[in-house]
Amino acid sequence: MQREDKYDLIFKALGDTRRREILDLLKVRGRTTGEVCEHFKQLDRCTVMQHLRALEKADLLIVRRDGRLRWNYINPLPIKELHDRWISSYADSAVDLLARMKRKIEGF
Amino acid sequence: MQREDKYDLIFKALGDTRRREILDLLKVRGRTTGEVCEHFKQLDRCTVMQHLRALEKADLLIVRRDGRLRWNYINPLPIKELHDRWISSYADSAVDLLARMKRKIEGF
Repeated sequence: MQREDKYDLIFKALGDTRRREILDLLKVRGRTTGEVCEHFKQLDRCTVMQHLRALEKADLLIVRRDGRLRWNYINPLPIKELHDRWISSYADSAVDLLARMKRKIEGF
Repeated sequence: MQREDKYDLIFKALGDTRRREILDLLKVRGRTTGEVCEHFKQLDRCTVMQHLRALEKADLLIVRRDGRLRWNYINPLPIKELHDRWISSYADSAVDLLARMKRKIEGF
């Protein structure tokens, strides 16, 4: 998959309040699908499964099967990647800027 | 604005390849709207302005006016916030987990 297609999936997945709430839940600890459904009492199991699948498709979930249980864990790597895409370089530029200012101030 | 409404705007803004490309461009240095248009030769100025407005609405841009020039800068704070929402706590959980493992191994 192309990098930008991957980003499309990530932002589509994160663009939904319920799916962000699922990630909030999973960042505390991994949960079975049953436990996630239990949290969203107002939603039917099928809807919760759709949200979990959208997160899985965007690689934001790690899924492990244990017999009849499906365990869902947050995968923080895509979020780390988008942070690095815009923040790390930004920090680098800030450092560059400071370095250039220093040289100017020091008269080089 | 509610926190989740703010997140909706952020992910809607970041859900478009062109807008991500604009942020890639601005992370290097601030650019005038004219310079951004120059980069997207295949788009008309009106479309570029729409993208810039979507980014501004999501608070991903800082805009400064200098006479007739409009300077656009990346605002990395919303990206930092979403990183902190899911990664920092995740790191905390990882540290908690390590601490619990240590206690178990040491027999407490």
